[in-house]
Amino acid sequence: MKQHTIQEIGQQLAKAKSVLLFPHDNADGDALGSAAALCGALRKAGKETAVLMGERAPDSFQFLDQGFFTFDQQQIPEPDICMCLDCGEPSRFLKRKEKFFQGRTTICLDHHVTSEPFADYNHIDGKAAAAAELVYKLIVSMGIAMDKTIGEAIFTGICTDTGNFQYSNTTKESHLITAALYDAGIDHAKVAVEVYQNMPLEKFQIVNKTLGTMELFAEGKAAMAHVTQAMLQEMGASVDHTDGCVEALRNIKGVEVAAFIKEKKDHLCKVSMRAKSTANVAKIAAVFGGGGHVKAAGCTLEMDIQEACGRLKQAIEESIRKDQALE
Amino acid sequence: MKQHTIQEIGQQLAKAKSVLLFPHDNADGDALGSAAALCGALRKAGKETAVLMGERAPDSFQFLDQGFFTFDQQQIPEPDICMCLDCGEPSRFLKRKEKFFQGRTTICLDHHVTSEPFADYNHIDGKAAAAAELVYKLIVSMGIAMDKTIGEAIFTGICTDTGNFQYSNTTKESHLITAALYDAGIDHAKVAVEVYQNMPLEKFQIVNKTLGTMELFAEGKAAMAHVTQAMLQEMGASVDHTDGCVEALRNIKGVEVAAFIKEKKDHLCKVSMRAKSTANVAKIAAVFGGGGHVKAAGCTLEMDIQEACGRLKQAIEESIRKDQALE
Repeated sequence: MKQHTIQEIGQQLAKAKSVLLFPHDNADGDALGSAAALCGALRKAGKETAVLMGERAPDSFQFLDQGFFTFDQQQIPEPDICMCLDCGEPSRFLKRKEKFFQGRTTICLDHHVTSEPFADYNHIDGKAAAAAELVYKLIVSMGIAMDKTIGEAIFTGICTDTGNFQYSNTTKESHLITAALYDAGIDHAKVAVEVYQNMPLEKFQIVNKTLGTMELFAEGKAAMAHVTQAMLQEMGASVDHTDGCVEALRNIKGVEVAAFIKEKKDHLCKVSMRAKSTANVAKIAAVFGGGGHVKAAGCTLEMDIQEACGRLKQAIEESIRKDQALE
Repeated sequence: MKQHTIQEIGQQLAKAKSVLLFPHDNADGDALGSAAALCGALRKAGKETAVLMGERAPDSFQFLDQGFFTFDQQQIPEPDICMCLDCGEPSRFLKRKEKFFQGRTTICLDHHVTSEPFADYNHIDGKAAAAAELVYKLIVSMGIAMDKTIGEAIFTGICTDTGNFQYSNTTKESHLITAALYDAGIDHAKVAVEVYQNMPLEKFQIVNKTLGTMELFAEGKAAMAHVTQAMLQEMGASVDHTDGCVEALRNIKGVEVAAFIKEKKDHLCKVSMRAKSTANVAKIAAVFGGGGHVKAAGCTLEMDIQEACGRLKQAIEESIRKDQALE
């Protein structure tokens, strides 16, 4: 299985009568934005198209569903093409995998560097900040006119995957594509309201409670916070609602290592860590058999949360001490 | 006093030997980014140039100071040009006003719709999302080569004034200018670290404490939070550190009116309000003699903070009830 060009993928889509689209499980703004944009474009081109969902989309992304999303695997019984978006491997759409490979032709459009081609046609561009950028190029290459709905879906993908054009993956092209979307009439501020002003109350509350546990140590170079099952139950929140907490800790001035400990169940804690500039959190995670990248890593500690906090704190302090000795 | 073109302003700067730049008081990312970018460019063009500051720049923007910022009104004793950036009126640089008008020629470059021309040369473009966009155009019109330092200062101005390209003031041009800055070699992710990962500890703590006072009412359509002098003293924080709290309240799903009450001193409370989509907070502010825009307004209540919270809550509930009656 090899890499194909955007044009080759466009030609396959142009030939097809029916196309079923697959965002990944726990779909985010890029997977859903990409799928919605392509669904809108293919319908404009007269194709029978739908987005086969793994689960209900988060509230923030419901606006993308202009009659596109379905849970019915039989909505298109025998699709000419099954195409997955933003998925590095078939395990990213596990319960829909069988249906995917029933497509007469399969296509994978993705931007994860680690992805291996697994479909009949594959276009994987690790330099693209978002899969939505590739969808933009695909729609342009097919000669389908961009419009407000398609443009806002692409914009959603780009914004969410670039952290609003702040993450290092953002490129000149992310901005050039976005500029072109303005010509299609997008209301970027409306998208921002949908995506960022729809925070579930339980998320607001659990984030507030969690950040309230913040503790600074190692002379202010490290920050740690935690969430317990009891806290989650009190707020009716899930662990997913604490996404973003570790970044909030890292954003404190002077903090070089941020650690966030989640009690998954009794005697099982998951740790997320972030480094700001010089520290290496992958090394700290490795102490506990975990791993990741220099600036974002994690590990699992099979112990009581209080013990986990203590052990992790020690490891972080030691790591910072070693770094200082080297300076 | 009339409006001038960017080119006319560039011609004045080209003729000058010395230029003193004025960001506004309590300078933000746009005022400081604009001033730093222009200072860097004018020095490249061989001018004697400095940025005369009103007060120390916030930590998040210290990286912009490449030997540009000064507090010494005599650093350039008799400037050919005094030029203010992002200032709608001379009251925006009150303690430096006398020095400003000592310039042989005065220039105002601004993007506030409400600004009145008050200098010898004025270019006020209310459509620009940031003054930094105008500085970009000015530098290009003067034929000075963009570089990494200048580019990152302009990027800072655009990011901060557009809320990372989310606010409604963002335009296609904001993205096109940013794309051009990538050609100048900007490290956009480094800027993001400086600007957003430098939160003072006391801000982190007071925001957490303040959002902990959040109360939902009017069937979840309104959210209110407050900060007292006692809370500020406990955290060693200032009222400015609570900037952003009212937006955090508005971001809760279902919340249409967000209100944030700050106790300035005994029996003096300042209120900030935000509406999400349909409500009109200017009307609610008017009940207490305040004002503002439909989606962002404020008022002052000369009473005890508990009474202020109660009175405001009543007014918001009444307003939401009226809106519902009209639906």
